[in-house]
Order: sequence, then structure tokens, then C-alpha cells
Amino acid sequence: MPRRVAPLEELIEQFERLPGIGRKSAQKLAFYVLEMPDEQAKKFAESIMLAHEKIHRCKVCCDLTDAEICSVCSDIKRDKSVICVVEGSKDVMAIERTHEYNGLYHVLHGAISPMNGIGLDEITVKELITRLSDPEIKEIIMATNPTVEGEATAMYISRLIKPMGIKVSRLAYGVPVGADLEYADEVTLSRAIEGRQEI
Amino acid sequence: MPRRVAPLEELIEQFERLPGIGRKSAQKLAFYVLEMPDEQAKKFAESIMLAHEKIHRCKVCCDLTDAEICSVCSDIKRDKSVICVVEGSKDVMAIERTHEYNGLYHVLHGAISPMNGIGLDEITVKELITRLSDPEIKEIIMATNPTVEGEATAMYISRLIKPMGIKVSRLAYGVPVGADLEYADEVTLSRAIEGRQEI
Repeated sequence: MPRRVAPLEELIEQFERLPGIGRKSAQKLAFYVLEMPDEQAKKFAESIMLAHEKIHRCKVCCDLTDAEICSVCSDIKRDKSVICVVEGSKDVMAIERTHEYNGLYHVLHGAISPMNGIGLDEITVKELITRLSDPEIKEIIMATNPTVEGEATAMYISRLIKPMGIKVSRLAYGVPVGADLEYADEVTLSRAIEGRQEI
Repeated sequence: MPRRVAPLEELIEQFERLPGIGRKSAQKLAFYVLEMPDEQAKKFAESIMLAHEKIHRCKVCCDLTDAEICSVCSDIKRDKSVICVVEGSKDVMAIERTHEYNGLYHVLHGAISPMNGIGLDEITVKELITRLSDPEIKEIIMATNPTVEGEATAMYISRLIKPMGIKVSRLAYGVPVGADLEYADEVTLSRAIEGRQEI
């Protein structure tokens, strides 16, 4: 089939490259963008460029920010004695949504995964260790994903930190709130039993 | 929750406005775009702007094109005696993929739908009628969607055209190839029986 309308084909291809977007969806999105008012399309294009230009890693916690130091690190009301270590910025967003945590973060930007060639140098462990020289820090909460890679990363980092005399904790495992016990997998359930708490 | 990183939030919001993209997907897409190389992100943004600037309706058939007259209308090898009337550009793409049709198209950009305030002036019926003054045109194939609106539009347009002495046909209804008869709905099946052909 000849390329009928080059700019349209190009737009469809661009959408098709995004994760989880197939040919049909890419077509639908491209036509939707075409039918947008000019101003709205301009805003969309600009937001892509702007995000790319302005967003970089926070000098302290490595989370994504448009300032030199992110809003969490520069907030004087946050508890500077706890650092919650996560794999990505999305995890920071998820924990912030709970409104339960008031400490700082450290974003690793990945997890150790020798199979995928991701070692210590690919994630921000070095930056984390540097931060720990601050005597104010009392506790590190490992909140990497409950996957093999996340676990390994948490174990590895906790072994690095423990000799420094800083408390290291891990997110509790257990059954998700609102879920049906019947459908919980065996590993989760046995972890929930292990970690049972007195009431 | 305070807006953590304005350019990132803006990008997520832009993605969220697209059809079929929820908050979670928008977040995933925004992070994916952020992690793209600068050059690729620039290309993505440019393709949106370019598509918007360059693409307009073909002066003849109203299909989307970046030229004054689209590639089908300007192709001397196409059969200029048949016009296939469709609701949208996506339908042109679908029919072109069959490699079976060699005539021209006319894109209505919608179907008559009084409930949604779409009347004759909102679709390109006037442009179609103007084209029919060309004595070369012998047949009009109505290929609007097999929906209530598509049907009504096809009926309405065919009534306008018939007095002009031009043959008007409609796409055949029947069971989709490869489908299971058992699961065909009653209307489709009865249309398939009605339209049965000798073998």
C-alpha cells in the first residue's frame, strides 16, 4: 500500500511506538489529534517538548523535577530523618497519594537485574550512600517492588547500609486491603501469616 | 495533593484527554515520552504540529490529504466512473487495504444523526452532489457504516442521487468471513439469507 498521507502516517507511527498502543489505537489517536482545534494540538506538542526540556533528576533524591531540588526535598515540613527508597517516580506518586508518609524519598530509577544488564552503576545507589553521610538520617524504608529484582535490590542496599548504623526497614507484605482471601496467592498469604500482628 | 512537577502533570493531562486513555495509561505514556531520547520526543511533537498544519480535506473527495488533491483523486489509473461514499478517512484506509477497489471515494466526515445535531450541512453531501455533474460518473457505492445513522444517510443520499440517473449500490450485508454462524446476530443472519447468491 502506498503511503497515502505522509504527515498522517508519521503521526500514526509515532503513536504506535508508545507502549501498549497497537496499530488500531494509534490510528484512532492520530485521527483524534487531527480533529483537535489547532490550539489544543499545539499545546499537546508543546507539553511534550516542555516536559523533555524542563524535567531532570532532583540533585538530592534523583526524583524527576523541574526545579534544581524537588518539592519534597525542599519542603521544610517533611521529616528529614527517614528516606523511602523506591524504584521509580511513579512509586513516589503512589506513596504520596496515601498522605501517610512525611519523610523523604530516594528514586533508584530501576532495580538491579543482571539478566537485563542493570547493575549498581545503572541505578542511583551511589547517590543514596552519599546522602547517608548526613547524621540526621535515622531510617531507610526499602519500598522497591515486591518482585525478584526489587527484592534483590532491597537486600543488597540494606546490606550496604546496615554497617553504617542506620535502621533499615521493608514495606510490609500481606493481603491487599479489600481483596478476597480465597484469591490471594500462596506466597502472599504465607507472608501475611508470617507478618501477622497482634490486635 | 500539590502539583509536584508541573510540566509532567501537564503532559499526563494531555495524554489523559485522548480517547480510551485513563489516568494510569496517561501516566505510563508520559513517563515513556520523558524517557525517550530528546530527538525522538522532538520528532513526536513535530509530527503532531506537522499533521495539523499540513493535513486538510481534498478539494475533490474531502478525504484527508497533505496535497491540494489527494493521491486517489489524482491517480490517473483509478476508475473515475465509480465513487464509493464513506463516513470517514479510516473507512478509505480499510477499503484500500482490500486492494479490491479501484474507483474514487467521497468522504462524508460523519453520518446524519438528528439526535446529535448532525444534519446535511455538517457532512459533505453538497460536495458529493456537485461532483455528480461530471457525466463520467456511472455508479455510487454507498459504504456508510451498517448502523442506524449510516443506513439513514445511505438511504437519504441514494434518494437524492437516483433521479439523476446514476446507479446507486450498497455494500452487501452478510456473515463476516471466518466468523461462527452460531454467534451471528439475527439481523445479520437474516440479511445474509435475504442476500443469498447462487453458487
